[in-house]
Amino acid sequence: MTDKTGRAGPLYLDDLAIGDIFESCAQVLDSQQIISFAQAFDPQPFHTDPTAAQDTFFRGLAASGWHTGAISMRLIVQSVPMANGIIGAGGEITWPSPSRPGDILRVRSEILDITPSRSRPGRAIALVRSTTLNQDDEVRQIFTSRMVVFGREGGSGG
Amino acid sequence: MTDKTGRAGPLYLDDLAIGDIFESCAQVLDSQQIISFAQAFDPQPFHTDPTAAQDTFFRGLAASGWHTGAISMRLIVQSVPMANGIIGAGGEITWPSPSRPGDILRVRSEILDITPSRSRPGRAIALVRSTTLNQDDEVRQIFTSRMVVFGREGGSGG
Repeated sequence: MTDKTGRAGPLYLDDLAIGDIFESCAQVLDSQQIISFAQAFDPQPFHTDPTAAQDTFFRGLAASGWHTGAISMRLIVQSVPMANGIIGAGGEITWPSPSRPGDILRVRSEILDITPSRSRPGRAIALVRSTTLNQDDEVRQIFTSRMVVFGREGGSGG
Repeated sequence: MTDKTGRAGPLYLDDLAIGDIFESCAQVLDSQQIISFAQAFDPQPFHTDPTAAQDTFFRGLAASGWHTGAISMRLIVQSVPMANGIIGAGGEITWPSPSRPGDILRVRSEILDITPSRSRPGRAIALVRSTTLNQDDEVRQIFTSRMVVFGREGGSGG
């Protein structure tokens, strides 16, 4: 819950600056997690069957991109202590390579831009690039998202 | 597993055309699912605590966007019968409104463009817009993604 400057949350708009970086802790991913998630949400052989996966595009068991996204969200929630929570409006996502069994995933989030709201004084949209990496610094996901951020006076009402 | 023309899968590159539309079946979302997913992947009060959620940006329990994305993926896997599976390289995602308890979600996927691969003859990237709607046609997610599609001769090897 601290960024590179050692600040703890919650962070309001005035606390944020372009270039701020937040590093998450790490989370281990194993085959059983990959298979369980995929059985619920992405039931395809390359995500659910280690043997069948050998003869697919992925040449072995690979995590669903949505699983990588969900784990990354958990790591972002833990590491980016925005006041009123992490509220995303959407963004651009890429999966340069799939997460694999044995990956130890972490997320590095960087504030790329901050745009004040025209209609809601005291609020802004932060453009945040969250890069999910494994223990060998292989990039598993890049999610460049628009997050709602709040001023101390802005309130949290929708 | 049929599109608007009643075709069944698997569908290869030659079977696809710009404008093709695929409609999924529907899936009910309830509070317990929302809370369980969020406890695992997006533990924030507006996703995990119906009472605390009242005083947040969302004014009540709201599903994690990643949960909407994961459910949508399951519906896409069921409704878009691409040969060799649904393999996404990424895309642009927006959540115009959050999924809510009681939503009955379905996904409508439309092929917007097809770009042949330069380096891999017999393969292409299909640009597909998948819109997730509830029973009142409220849009919960739009995911415009790049999917790898294969010709009959293209093979599935990575």
